[in-house]
Amino acid sequence: MAGAMAGAIETVRRVGDLRARVRGWKAEGLRVGLTPTMGALHEGHLSLVARALEATDRVVATIFVNPTQFGAGEDFSTYPRDEARDGALLARAGASLLFAPPVEEMYPPGFATEVRVSGLTDCLCGAARPGHFDGVAQVVTKLLNQAEADAAVFGEKDWQQLAVIRRLARDLDIPTEILGAPILREADGLAMSSRNRYLTAEERAVAPALARALTAAAAEIAGGRAPAEACADAAAALQAAGFRAVDYVDCREADSLAPVQSAPPARPARIFGAAHLGRARLIDNLPVPGAGR
Amino acid sequence: MAGAMAGAIETVRRVGDLRARVRGWKAEGLRVGLTPTMGALHEGHLSLVARALEATDRVVATIFVNPTQFGAGEDFSTYPRDEARDGALLARAGASLLFAPPVEEMYPPGFATEVRVSGLTDCLCGAARPGHFDGVAQVVTKLLNQAEADAAVFGEKDWQQLAVIRRLARDLDIPTEILGAPILREADGLAMSSRNRYLTAEERAVAPALARALTAAAAEIAGGRAPAEACADAAAALQAAGFRAVDYVDCREADSLAPVQSAPPARPARIFGAAHLGRARLIDNLPVPGAGR
Repeated sequence: MAGAMAGAIETVRRVGDLRARVRGWKAEGLRVGLTPTMGALHEGHLSLVARALEATDRVVATIFVNPTQFGAGEDFSTYPRDEARDGALLARAGASLLFAPPVEEMYPPGFATEVRVSGLTDCLCGAARPGHFDGVAQVVTKLLNQAEADAAVFGEKDWQQLAVIRRLARDLDIPTEILGAPILREADGLAMSSRNRYLTAEERAVAPALARALTAAAAEIAGGRAPAEACADAAAALQAAGFRAVDYVDCREADSLAPVQSAPPARPARIFGAAHLGRARLIDNLPVPGAGR
Repeated sequence: MAGAMAGAIETVRRVGDLRARVRGWKAEGLRVGLTPTMGALHEGHLSLVARALEATDRVVATIFVNPTQFGAGEDFSTYPRDEARDGALLARAGASLLFAPPVEEMYPPGFATEVRVSGLTDCLCGAARPGHFDGVAQVVTKLLNQAEADAAVFGEKDWQQLAVIRRLARDLDIPTEILGAPILREADGLAMSSRNRYLTAEERAVAPALARALTAAAAEIAGGRAPAEACADAAAALQAAGFRAVDYVDCREADSLAPVQSAPPARPARIFGAAHLGRARLIDNLPVPGAGR
């Protein structure tokens, strides 16, 4: 089963093979971690593996570009795929196994089951990308049940996704602990993302404006400015910086994603942004300092 | 934890306690079976326990009258509940543990996750009871994930439910084998059901007409009569016998539940019926002899 290439990671493509490896480790008394990804790995993903290795003994990474979470006109077909490179990075990061199933292993003919988390998915990226989180909920439910891991790590970059996954794992009693891992940023503040590679050099120079605008708005809200005003200013700043369209800049409670109207917020709050730059759609989020403390 | 009453079964009400018991057994190398029920047990349920004991070493029965699978105006609040009697029956049948959670253990505040199986749920009871199978899919996904059993047994009396559960377990990669158990019938052919106790003596005398009508229609279809005609005659026979309303009499493929138009059917087929008698809604199903063989 092990890959032949130097630096390659053992790779399996069938659920049965994944389970056999995981159950073997568990039978030895080892704890198993899971880091689901869509590939096109960067340091942010590798930090998920590192986080999983803090909590468990063996880490399974998955690479699956899940068609059900992409909408019409989104970048499913062009999403970057380079499994050999990704596998070498995962091996170096300390992962023990790569699960990279073909689409037909995940969605065989006759597949008919949907998973939907209501409420949390209505706002932010859920409003901007209808059906996206239904696809996420579906594939993550599958991956968690397939791997039977003790813990699974997801990045806080996709904060809303993390909230949705925590909710569904709790609601459906999936016996895997869900862990979040902090956002990794480039030196200029841009949150690491596979989609950053869509940016031209010129756009890449503009991109850090997203983190800057969110940071400024968060500081203003912490200082008592009305969230709606601070967010509107941040959105205007993004347009002025060269972003093509702003899906949202929004201040929400960290756990419930309920809208925050008062400043400073009474409970832990975050500011969320999503905006289009060239052919990339960039998202970011960060805490409102001191909120709810 | 063990109940004090003679003949009582050890009963747990929290998922954590259920998991601790099941994991203890698994750590001893024992296989664990699950038989989900809504209580109001009859011999049919006890046969599910017997079936589970054929496949596994320890059987957990669950009793949970799941509010999310009842529609407005259905019998959720009046559904018969007698846990002490049910527990004694389960102990005698050989079950080792009863999981009987309160509603708030299953659906705590903030619960937000739906599970939906499309296609299979559009027809038959899915058409007659909108949302019913969404509730079934939701609670069964939970029970399977809670128990982490090796196998779970469901009755063929609820054939469509069994098909939905097989589908969702496969689609969501729930690592529990789904087993069906044959319908148990009274001496006069009436399929055993908790809802039979709603029948007056007079209605009870009429009730076997359902199995008789389905048996006759199945024989006619096996003999080459058009399914639509045979089913229409069966429905008319139910009305004539004293059933108040017929939700459906329908001939469908056994696995896909696709409609069957040709006679004799090319693939395994069953005839399904649902009809109201007094305040009971009775359902039944049986195979079309020789279909698809």
